[in-house]
Amino acid sequence: MNKRMIAYVLGILLLCEAGLLLLPVAVSLIYSESTLISFLLTIGILCAAGIILIHFKPKDKTIFAKDGLFVVALGWIFLSLFGALPFFISREIPNYLDALFETVSGFTTTGASILSDVEALSKALLFWRSFTHWIGGMGVLVFVMAVLPLAGGGGDLHLMRAESPGPSVSKLVPRSNKTARILYGIYLVMTIAQIVLLLVGGMPLFDSITISFGTAGTGGFGILNNSIGGYNTFCQAVITVFMTLFGINFNVYFLILIKNFKGAFKSEELWGYLGIMGAAILAITLNIRNHFDSIFEALHHAAFQVSSVMTTTGYSTTDFDKWPEFSKTVLIMVMCIGACAGSTGGGFKVSRVLLLLKYAKKTIHSYVHPRSIKVITFDGQRVANETFQGTMAFFIVYVIIFAVSVLIVSADKHDLVTDFSGVVATFNNIGPGLGKVGPTGNFGSYGVLSKIVFIIDMLLGRLEIFPLICLFTPSLHIKHFRKKL
Amino acid sequence: MNKRMIAYVLGILLLCEAGLLLLPVAVSLIYSESTLISFLLTIGILCAAGIILIHFKPKDKTIFAKDGLFVVALGWIFLSLFGALPFFISREIPNYLDALFETVSGFTTTGASILSDVEALSKALLFWRSFTHWIGGMGVLVFVMAVLPLAGGGGDLHLMRAESPGPSVSKLVPRSNKTARILYGIYLVMTIAQIVLLLVGGMPLFDSITISFGTAGTGGFGILNNSIGGYNTFCQAVITVFMTLFGINFNVYFLILIKNFKGAFKSEELWGYLGIMGAAILAITLNIRNHFDSIFEALHHAAFQVSSVMTTTGYSTTDFDKWPEFSKTVLIMVMCIGACAGSTGGGFKVSRVLLLLKYAKKTIHSYVHPRSIKVITFDGQRVANETFQGTMAFFIVYVIIFAVSVLIVSADKHDLVTDFSGVVATFNNIGPGLGKVGPTGNFGSYGVLSKIVFIIDMLLGRLEIFPLICLFTPSLHIKHFRKKL
Repeated sequence: MNKRMIAYVLGILLLCEAGLLLLPVAVSLIYSESTLISFLLTIGILCAAGIILIHFKPKDKTIFAKDGLFVVALGWIFLSLFGALPFFISREIPNYLDALFETVSGFTTTGASILSDVEALSKALLFWRSFTHWIGGMGVLVFVMAVLPLAGGGGDLHLMRAESPGPSVSKLVPRSNKTARILYGIYLVMTIAQIVLLLVGGMPLFDSITISFGTAGTGGFGILNNSIGGYNTFCQAVITVFMTLFGINFNVYFLILIKNFKGAFKSEELWGYLGIMGAAILAITLNIRNHFDSIFEALHHAAFQVSSVMTTTGYSTTDFDKWPEFSKTVLIMVMCIGACAGSTGGGFKVSRVLLLLKYAKKTIHSYVHPRSIKVITFDGQRVANETFQGTMAFFIVYVIIFAVSVLIVSADKHDLVTDFSGVVATFNNIGPGLGKVGPTGNFGSYGVLSKIVFIIDMLLGRLEIFPLICLFTPSLHIKHFRKKL
Repeated sequence: MNKRMIAYVLGILLLCEAGLLLLPVAVSLIYSESTLISFLLTIGILCAAGIILIHFKPKDKTIFAKDGLFVVALGWIFLSLFGALPFFISREIPNYLDALFETVSGFTTTGASILSDVEALSKALLFWRSFTHWIGGMGVLVFVMAVLPLAGGGGDLHLMRAESPGPSVSKLVPRSNKTARILYGIYLVMTIAQIVLLLVGGMPLFDSITISFGTAGTGGFGILNNSIGGYNTFCQAVITVFMTLFGINFNVYFLILIKNFKGAFKSEELWGYLGIMGAAILAITLNIRNHFDSIFEALHHAAFQVSSVMTTTGYSTTDFDKWPEFSKTVLIMVMCIGACAGSTGGGFKVSRVLLLLKYAKKTIHSYVHPRSIKVITFDGQRVANETFQGTMAFFIVYVIIFAVSVLIVSADKHDLVTDFSGVVATFNNIGPGLGKVGPTGNFGSYGVLSKIVFIIDMLLGRLEIFPLICLFTPSLHIKHFRKKL
């Protein structure tokens, strides 16, 4: 393990966070808020820690797969620990654990909150809170890579693989940092497009920017207590469309960008994603049509809510906890499925669902036609056995973590629906659940242990489990580890 | 496919059911109940249908694996359709769908009921209801095989495999029908032992027999409205012990019988089962200790309830729906895990859980030590790749069926906990769930479609999915199918 290199990359990461904090500093200045000092203090701390760490700059800049997992896991924990400081120092969230919960929820693009009154926060902190979504959505290491190449020997790819969601990550172009730059380019352009459209719809600039950050990262932090409910129908529709767009694998956009339309639209995951989403919207629209004045209004809210929870954003236009049981059940299911791999969304991912379905179908088929050899393909390519094993192991570990989390948080004496949906909502990086943690509730009433479990679940969900597991598995601390993940 | 042979075996099965109905006939006579006529009518119908079917007696008595799946799936459906007749003809359950629900619940050893007042049933029907548990527990085809060898060419083994729970079925002795006889021998002796102990504890004979039937089959139909709550502590403790015993793989008892104690106690599944059960009892005891006068009373009820739901029996001594959320969460989890393979219990099975855990561990290990070759063993034997594939496919299909079932029954506008736990309780053949289908509730308030879903879930759960899937998959109706499952 290249420890010096790990320290060095972490140092760069902290300096980078200090740089990103200049934006909320600017917001503080514009609105002449007293939060300025807490941001400057945090920047000072980050610079000090960062400069110490980059002193370890190694000669050998190789990063192995395991180092990549380590850096990503530690990096995200550090970013969150320091990122929580402005909330804490400014006393706007006086409890550090709550501040950490809010920050982890931001970076992991969960959008779950411990705040009962969001509107009480200052503009600069609201901005920082939404900005963490935008940073976390595409990944902070990917961001660093887009700016400067970090490691040699394919190391950047290891970092990207460890940070990016989905069962397999491919480079769009041969060089990892160029891939990172393309990804962030698409991300930025789409975010700006949304801001412009929201402005056209009459939304104030501050709202447009923060809401677009939350949409782009599929995060879900709003700046008003009723989330998106207070904006007009046009703005809500714009957000619906962009949530859906940010839930699509960015490879598709890249292929469109290089005019490979055929490649873009043959993506099985894309059609699976749109198909499931369409079916869910239809089912819920029919189920809730009597709750609204017209079927179009029902469709509008169903589409908003399905794309919000399926892409794991978590915005709401209405209190869906009051919808009929059937609609809530559909929402829970699309919550668990989640968005596409390689998007900013969380959850189990549509591609994993498709892979498992194909696997089950093949196994049943082979019971009856034992001599036939059926190859499983995905997007026309044969799926490697390792991908299956990984997906299966992911599924198993996913279920175990889920069960253990529900068990621990159930000690806090809420009801089963709250506990269950709370874990679904944090582990899948969605945000609101049902019951007491529904769209009008929050996670503030949980105890310390439960909050820690939720924080860990959010990180596990965003980093897709394995980096964090490797961090805490002592047998994995071996020296000669030279193969890629 | 040997269609004549399938018809023949089904005919034998129906005649066998007619024979088994002579027991409730005897009960009718003892208590001079008017239900006698409905049993005699049913027997007449069964004999007529059975005699027609055995006319197909084929020269070639070979049964292939797929035929086995077919016979078992069709056999269980037929048994239930006819077995529901006494309830229906006697008008004690005037709705045929409800009668079918109750009968399927009996044969599949689920124990879920649509009755709000069990005590209103006549003695003979109460007996028949409990007796279906006993027949379904070990399997009705296994019973037939114990009496007469059915098929040649390893066909009996195919039948046994299709009917018996767990990822793999091994013959105890070379001949299948001798294996069946040994299994039923152990089953019978243990049932009688329980009846005797309950009589010693002061329970009336009729209660002892019916309750023991329900325990042996891990079914859970009681004959009193408060299930087991009305009996004394000694009897409850006896039932706790026997529920636990009937949840153990019967191979263990066979090994003890042939004095191979070393083989019996090295079973990993046995220790996994007892370990999980012990941990769950401990956790719940500590959690509910303030609900009872003493910690021993808490332990008594915790032990009863955990062994009841983990073995998927479903008896209750107290309304556990009123226990704290943490205890309910633990109960839901052991419900899903279920009992040992090769026992009369249902659920996902401890051995499958252990297999998946080992698989996940191995896969994570191989990420970090890519050159190491780690072989997965179970009970000291290497696990075949096919067993893994089968287990995983089972896991995936299990989750899918679960999700679809919850979705359909949620249309009935109960609450999420009721719907969710109702599916858990029927699919895992447990019986009571939580909320409106909790220990003091029943499934009567669900609509027709939901009841049909629950009936299918109970059958899918008992037959472990694949036989029924094969029955309804047209592409599987192929002619040249010559390999074992």
